[in-house]
Amino acid sequence: MTQITRVSVHDVRFPTSLSADGSDAMNKDGDYSAAYVILHTDDASLSGFGFTFTIGRGNDICVLAARQRAEPLIGRDVDDLLDDLGGAYRELKSDSQLRWLGPEKGVEHLAMAAVMNALWDLAARRAGKPLWRLLADMSPEQLVDVADLQYLSDALTREEAMAILQRQAPTRQERITQLEASGYPCYTTSAGWLGYSDEKLRRLCQEAVDAGYRHIKLKVGANLDDDIRRCSIAREVIGDDANLMIDANQVWDVPVAIEWVNALAQFRPLWIEEPTSPDDILGHAAVRRAVAPVGVATGEHGMNRVLFKQMFQAEAIDFCQLDSARLASINEILSVYLMAQKFGVPVCPHAGGVGLCELVQHLSVFDYVAISGSLENRVTEYVDHLHEHFVEPCVVTDGAYRLPQAPGYSAEMYDSTIEEFSYPSGSYWAGRR
Amino acid sequence: MTQITRVSVHDVRFPTSLSADGSDAMNKDGDYSAAYVILHTDDASLSGFGFTFTIGRGNDICVLAARQRAEPLIGRDVDDLLDDLGGAYRELKSDSQLRWLGPEKGVEHLAMAAVMNALWDLAARRAGKPLWRLLADMSPEQLVDVADLQYLSDALTREEAMAILQRQAPTRQERITQLEASGYPCYTTSAGWLGYSDEKLRRLCQEAVDAGYRHIKLKVGANLDDDIRRCSIAREVIGDDANLMIDANQVWDVPVAIEWVNALAQFRPLWIEEPTSPDDILGHAAVRRAVAPVGVATGEHGMNRVLFKQMFQAEAIDFCQLDSARLASINEILSVYLMAQKFGVPVCPHAGGVGLCELVQHLSVFDYVAISGSLENRVTEYVDHLHEHFVEPCVVTDGAYRLPQAPGYSAEMYDSTIEEFSYPSGSYWAGRR
Repeated sequence: MTQITRVSVHDVRFPTSLSADGSDAMNKDGDYSAAYVILHTDDASLSGFGFTFTIGRGNDICVLAARQRAEPLIGRDVDDLLDDLGGAYRELKSDSQLRWLGPEKGVEHLAMAAVMNALWDLAARRAGKPLWRLLADMSPEQLVDVADLQYLSDALTREEAMAILQRQAPTRQERITQLEASGYPCYTTSAGWLGYSDEKLRRLCQEAVDAGYRHIKLKVGANLDDDIRRCSIAREVIGDDANLMIDANQVWDVPVAIEWVNALAQFRPLWIEEPTSPDDILGHAAVRRAVAPVGVATGEHGMNRVLFKQMFQAEAIDFCQLDSARLASINEILSVYLMAQKFGVPVCPHAGGVGLCELVQHLSVFDYVAISGSLENRVTEYVDHLHEHFVEPCVVTDGAYRLPQAPGYSAEMYDSTIEEFSYPSGSYWAGRR
Repeated sequence: MTQITRVSVHDVRFPTSLSADGSDAMNKDGDYSAAYVILHTDDASLSGFGFTFTIGRGNDICVLAARQRAEPLIGRDVDDLLDDLGGAYRELKSDSQLRWLGPEKGVEHLAMAAVMNALWDLAARRAGKPLWRLLADMSPEQLVDVADLQYLSDALTREEAMAILQRQAPTRQERITQLEASGYPCYTTSAGWLGYSDEKLRRLCQEAVDAGYRHIKLKVGANLDDDIRRCSIAREVIGDDANLMIDANQVWDVPVAIEWVNALAQFRPLWIEEPTSPDDILGHAAVRRAVAPVGVATGEHGMNRVLFKQMFQAEAIDFCQLDSARLASINEILSVYLMAQKFGVPVCPHAGGVGLCELVQHLSVFDYVAISGSLENRVTEYVDHLHEHFVEPCVVTDGAYRLPQAPGYSAEMYDSTIEEFSYPSGSYWAGRR
């Protein structure tokens, strides 16, 4: 019998603010960070790794919350936990005192994501499979049993969830074979951060095109004249046929969003991302009606499945950009994918940050294999930052994620990274404070 | 020149779980707690007190977040800060790194509430006025300047907010005089906690009627047969003319809520409170359509003004129960009151917990005096717990809050309370762990 003996949670911060990587209209000086959870077992060869992503200050608060959230796992039998990941999830989330602090949103939910991500990583490692395959090997019934359907039955019943999964079950292996050959298509945001000069923007767009990308994303929203100039440069470099996406990172009220997006419509953006408050379902619906054919995308700050349910019900979005470290791991993400499928909205997960690309590649592969069975209008974000800190970094070639092969959720960081970038005592930070 | 010299934040927890006070279908064993903020100045006679309310575990996380959120206030000139409370609020909320952890929800937003509550308390103390009067002495323009209207302009413009306040401005004093005579009507929840026996329920309902209450609230949602029996007892004791409210504390999915409430409709509840997830705007709207004439009430877990905006836009609620320690203090609460007025929804603030009654009495008085000018369908919650820990506790007689007279937001606790109930080292807890 293998037990979880100890949980360690690390405050890992990378000094990304030094290079304006990740700068946008809302977030100008982030230090990309992770509240990084390790579930240690008494089998030295078996640990689970997971994290949530933040942009600096407050990462310590997530660390404290994750420690508290993971406490009930200590001393528990690994097989018991992993054989019933729905039960483990419900147990952790049923702490009514911690629930009061959300419910199911903010710091407590980020912490829940970090801990459950580590438990799913542990499950995949125990099984000796990459997470996408662990999921692809589960039956429709097993998948529905782990999905969190609470508060969703007016939009998705258990029977509907089963039917969606059963429809794709017989042909899963065909799509796996296809993705093993071609990978899962992605787009790059690395070109378009707001803090970059026009010259750097032009060069990075060209490099992205040369590397096989058909989708390029630009940050907008600080200054309309700048946005017009930058979109014009990008469109010129990528040509008429490639896709340009724009991302405002929540800076606008609804009426401003409509006006601004319509002023950029001449560059034919595929979508406007985060035009306003991520909580504003009806606001997104209003923007969508007013800016079509430009699509509306949001979700990286989508706090939980109840928000996404309403985004679908209100026909508020064209693209669902769920976040793998903000939703409470596979249990909740699965529900959002199933609802998206029912309502016909493609899921294009948010990535970038610290390790989000490593996580979402599993999600996108699983979606294609077992839920949507389609690649139409689907493209997963990719940002070329910080992968060097991961033991099994994602591999992107010719504009596509290659299928991860190593056991787990690709979430493990190097020990040396933890040592160097632990805040505030790691060797990098200790020397600079 | 007076400066803020120091911020202390205390983890105060009361052992309410011992008596089943506060038990409901979702929260069975809460220890009512506060992350309690003191803004110390170099004038020994001037401090600001504020808090957010939690139900036990995780209160330490809010304490840490409040310390971090308040840090920019240290060393600042008190007059500069208090003369521009809109600016102080925007400065604290503009920390984009902390914003990532919400935005504007969960632990970070609770912490923002605690800190800004203390700053508003400080402002009222400096002015030598109870907070309701400080607000009632502000002009419409000054009030709109402190209100947080970000993300609201599709529902409430600055001009509309001004017009609402200007309409009531000439007659504010008349309504103050009226409330000084009669108080602000309240209802009691003390009778109806789920953990109480039928005999205790019957006795407490009778005591409430005898004390002048015309509204009684019962917790429901654990077992339908029990609910039918308890509602029947309550209706029998309070008679046909008094108001019975029921509160499910978020336990139901939307279809279950509709079925369950319709099964209790025979007892003619004035409202069903928190029938489902507090995030589910469209769900509340669906419940409201299906259970009329029973009203729908929610808001104690309403995370921010963007949620309330949509509740109003979607015609999802009949009663708005905003929370004084969950919304980010007056700056955000003011916006919700103004929207409620525009959309014709009465605000009946959530109270109880630790010190929420002390806070909301100021809000209700100000609403009547300066925003709604009406008492119709308005009644403020009152729970008779834990008032003995406050230096200026609210006073309730004949079913009405009496107007607070002491300077401040009534938020100060006794030093002896902090000493005794600080967790885990206070004298109460140190002896029990």
